[in-house]
Amino acid sequence: VTARRELDALARRAAATPGLIPLAGGLPADRQFPRAALAASFLRVLDARDGAALQYGWPEGQGGLRARIAARLGARVGAAVSADDVIVTNGAQQAIAIAAASLARPGDAIGVEPASYPAALELFRVRGLRLVPLGEARVSYVMSTLGNPTGRALDAPGRRAAARGRWIIDDDAYGELAFEGRTAPLWQGRRGRVVHVGTFSKTLCPGLRVGWLVVPEALRARALRLKHGDDLQANSLAQAVVDDTLAHIDFDARLAVLRRYYRSRAARLARAIRRALPAWSFAFPEGGFSLWLEADGRVDDARLLRAAVDEGVSFDPGSTFEGLRDQGPTRLRVCYSAAAPESFDDAAARLARAWRRVHGAARPFRARRAAPHLSS
Amino acid sequence: VTARRELDALARRAAATPGLIPLAGGLPADRQFPRAALAASFLRVLDARDGAALQYGWPEGQGGLRARIAARLGARVGAAVSADDVIVTNGAQQAIAIAAASLARPGDAIGVEPASYPAALELFRVRGLRLVPLGEARVSYVMSTLGNPTGRALDAPGRRAAARGRWIIDDDAYGELAFEGRTAPLWQGRRGRVVHVGTFSKTLCPGLRVGWLVVPEALRARALRLKHGDDLQANSLAQAVVDDTLAHIDFDARLAVLRRYYRSRAARLARAIRRALPAWSFAFPEGGFSLWLEADGRVDDARLLRAAVDEGVSFDPGSTFEGLRDQGPTRLRVCYSAAAPESFDDAAARLARAWRRVHGAARPFRARRAAPHLSS
Repeated sequence: VTARRELDALARRAAATPGLIPLAGGLPADRQFPRAALAASFLRVLDARDGAALQYGWPEGQGGLRARIAARLGARVGAAVSADDVIVTNGAQQAIAIAAASLARPGDAIGVEPASYPAALELFRVRGLRLVPLGEARVSYVMSTLGNPTGRALDAPGRRAAARGRWIIDDDAYGELAFEGRTAPLWQGRRGRVVHVGTFSKTLCPGLRVGWLVVPEALRARALRLKHGDDLQANSLAQAVVDDTLAHIDFDARLAVLRRYYRSRAARLARAIRRALPAWSFAFPEGGFSLWLEADGRVDDARLLRAAVDEGVSFDPGSTFEGLRDQGPTRLRVCYSAAAPESFDDAAARLARAWRRVHGAARPFRARRAAPHLSS
Repeated sequence: VTARRELDALARRAAATPGLIPLAGGLPADRQFPRAALAASFLRVLDARDGAALQYGWPEGQGGLRARIAARLGARVGAAVSADDVIVTNGAQQAIAIAAASLARPGDAIGVEPASYPAALELFRVRGLRLVPLGEARVSYVMSTLGNPTGRALDAPGRRAAARGRWIIDDDAYGELAFEGRTAPLWQGRRGRVVHVGTFSKTLCPGLRVGWLVVPEALRARALRLKHGDDLQANSLAQAVVDDTLAHIDFDARLAVLRRYYRSRAARLARAIRRALPAWSFAFPEGGFSLWLEADGRVDDARLLRAAVDEGVSFDPGSTFEGLRDQGPTRLRVCYSAAAPESFDDAAARLARAWRRVHGAARPFRARRAAPHLSS
């Protein structure tokens, strides 16, 4: 808890530091937000006679938007998806929270990847769940299409391990942003076991907080009851705006633009890191917003982040992604999604200076345990 | 659970029935939504350079809005309230959910009023809490300023009973809509024990889902961790729009208009009910959206609601508000907030016909247990 608070305080300090190059946070690029389309949609839905965009709605969300989500998912997995199974949530995070509460109780174990989404891991901890390797629990949480922080699909051993349990929560938050085009979430032959999580946070904008949960019919009533208890319903206005925006833009064309945009940024940050920190290793991502770096040694996360912020760059510390407490070399997530690409060379040089300052004073590196199913 | 599902299905049927007069749901009046002000705010915040309205934000919410909420609450309770203690939530419901999760674990008891807000009671049940009378648990949930469904302040015995426990969750959702002006939430001398819940759902519009939680400093870290786990943060866009709207409108003048508007509707529905159902009793509300009626007999809630929907009117069944399973006469909430006032005479006549149909065939009424602290 102390370490978490210290890292949180450092992240806030970094965000408030003028001139710092932010490689932390996993934010989508502001300049890609479809402002004009959103503004037009807002005025249309506000003008609608029934006033539904400003009024209370049903806990499962608006019918039109749920049908749209079901249709898109159905096309990706090659199967019919029922709009009745879709619950619109306050972002993907709430979908994960409802899925976890539907499937596991305090004290239960949940299987996670060696490196996974920090807010999900933190949620599982705060709800009293024990984090264990994939395959060792009744419920698994994975990002099968594109991992965070790895930016890569879950590998075959990871998929097999996840499938050993009864339930799989498949967080597809980045799934439509694979550089080479479409990905297929876990689904085939597992429909009764997969709880699917998605969001428009990466493909439209996160501030609207519109995500979704697709549950097998057996879980529907409980998930809906939990959603209602949590906050009655997702934002009516945001749902109406997203639904209307999707009706008026070519969303697939937008995705194609975003994929090219983020791939070009990924390549540029990768070059900068290779040049400034040639002894570090990473696998080039298949999509998403970040590189998952492995340093050539181990130092304390907070010390490295403090030094980096002093040098004028931020990153996301590896320990927040490593729910299984891997004691390997220092790892860190650096995001190419939001900072200006022209700053990447500077950012990498600053990070290298911070590393030399801290690692020069660090204890010698110890060999790490094997990390099964690590995608990167 | 079966009863709940049946009532839910009836509520949905009612909402989809053309020509039905809706006295159910507790919705604010659409025509009072400040559409023009919201639209102007939306365009301003979308135009802002930093793009914050569409981007991720911190889990506690936007600083300007938190300061505004703290200042308003401080003025009402006559004490300094720190913006640091405010967490912006996805409506009041999420604030209640976070408060409950911060203070009670599955199996714990929570004290509630004899008639209280159904979605809070249902949340407590789904989280495994036991509902007990006020004063018999470490944590109490009350609506001290204006109760739902009663529309009246918590009486002195109720306040004393709630104060017997360690913690009070004070849900002030309607507190700014007392017909005679301002109310003061529970606060004086209890600051370290009160978790305050508020919302803009009744005073601006519910579709934005902007509520708040004000916690004593000792609870701040845990509440914030729960908020982050639940859904990362409240909708950035809605927060920015509410903050900007409050900066541009005279909110106190708006509240004065709303109070007059709802009081006039309350009087009109009260007259209609007294005329059509003279044997029923209720106390005229001090504010809020509804009348809490007590019938002159007892029938099954679902049967009465089914008959009412057949007659073309809806209401909220009393059993959903009565967490302590009072076996007294049938009670029901009828809302004057959203339906057209010209329809109130018809609505009351339809309700009276439904009552006669069902009550004529009902078992004889049995004397009820004493219901302490019932405000209405």
